[in-house]
Amino acid sequence: MEKNISKSVIRRLPRYYRFLEELLSEGVEKISSGQLAERMRSTASQIRQDLNCFGGFGQQGYGYNVAELRAEIGAILHLDGKRKVILIGAGNLGRAIAAHIDFAQYGCELIGIFDRDRALLGLDIAGLKICSTNALGDFCREKKPDMAVLCIPREGAKEAVKLLVEHNVRAFWNFSHYDIQGDFPEAAVENVHLTDSLMTLSYIMENNEFSAKEEQNT
Amino acid sequence: MEKNISKSVIRRLPRYYRFLEELLSEGVEKISSGQLAERMRSTASQIRQDLNCFGGFGQQGYGYNVAELRAEIGAILHLDGKRKVILIGAGNLGRAIAAHIDFAQYGCELIGIFDRDRALLGLDIAGLKICSTNALGDFCREKKPDMAVLCIPREGAKEAVKLLVEHNVRAFWNFSHYDIQGDFPEAAVENVHLTDSLMTLSYIMENNEFSAKEEQNT
Repeated sequence: MEKNISKSVIRRLPRYYRFLEELLSEGVEKISSGQLAERMRSTASQIRQDLNCFGGFGQQGYGYNVAELRAEIGAILHLDGKRKVILIGAGNLGRAIAAHIDFAQYGCELIGIFDRDRALLGLDIAGLKICSTNALGDFCREKKPDMAVLCIPREGAKEAVKLLVEHNVRAFWNFSHYDIQGDFPEAAVENVHLTDSLMTLSYIMENNEFSAKEEQNT
Repeated sequence: MEKNISKSVIRRLPRYYRFLEELLSEGVEKISSGQLAERMRSTASQIRQDLNCFGGFGQQGYGYNVAELRAEIGAILHLDGKRKVILIGAGNLGRAIAAHIDFAQYGCELIGIFDRDRALLGLDIAGLKICSTNALGDFCREKKPDMAVLCIPREGAKEAVKLLVEHNVRAFWNFSHYDIQGDFPEAAVENVHLTDSLMTLSYIMENNEFSAKEEQNT
């Protein structure tokens, strides 16, 4: 069932999940595709089409059970996983990610934070002490992390990723501008280029016709 | 010339800009569409097509002048602007954005940081003292900011955006999960949903066939 789902549908699932969480927190128990569409600024047919990819959760004339649909989408996204995550780079951004993101909510557990800056070593972030990148290899051999969050400049990133791939880290949440898949095409990668987003906003605000529709699905 | 450019081309421009910056920093003066394509994991025809939207900068048999092309794309993205930016929410993420992002490089100047948490007031971030959100209206009347970075929870975001829109702030770099354009369709908005990205990575790493191609353009 989960095979052959288009990438654009997959890209929309986190957004569904997020809106369903909101609805749940507001005590909404069921919702029609029309109501959900209005809230998400989408269309009822788009929503029905997307959710049908996974077998369709709605019932004609009843709508969707919010809690069930959220749980189903969460399962498709593997948010019920137990992935061990390490964070490389405890600068401003890295520390903020460690403290700000509730990894457990997404099937992840942050188990280590690494930096090469000696001044940061031992500092406590999100209940973890920042360790030296010199200890990264040993740590990986022992703890076998699944995923790494990269919050380092492009310069050091290639070396770090090479080491991590050698230790079977296969997924990267990449905040650096290093193009991981250019060198490691097998890696699972999500790039977050914050400044690309700022540049896009710069364009949008000077060329306003771009705005509303484009943003609908983000 | 800049009209009728497809949104997907616009979305790719920051990536071109980023790669051209890299090339420039490496001292590369000119590059063919083929070489650029290889580096960006795109195709030469895609690149020529994209850049032709803006009049085409290349010269047959010579390739692109890296510095010129970068400057041209920067101008299209209005990175030579002088936009006044304020940041709302000086928690972990907000402080990291203030300290981590080089706003000046993108035609922006961070002129104010606001939070409602009294414990944070007066704290110095990126050369600015954190101010109370109570002072936001007065500040806007006096300084007329163009753009706001929202690093607050969804709960307080609607109220903040309403106030800002009333004070003619028309662009939002939105890290909150508040759907600004649902209430303010005229606003220029770039949403950054970090946890959507983490959820997508969660899916990708468990369904590896998704990976390489999809990431090509991010």
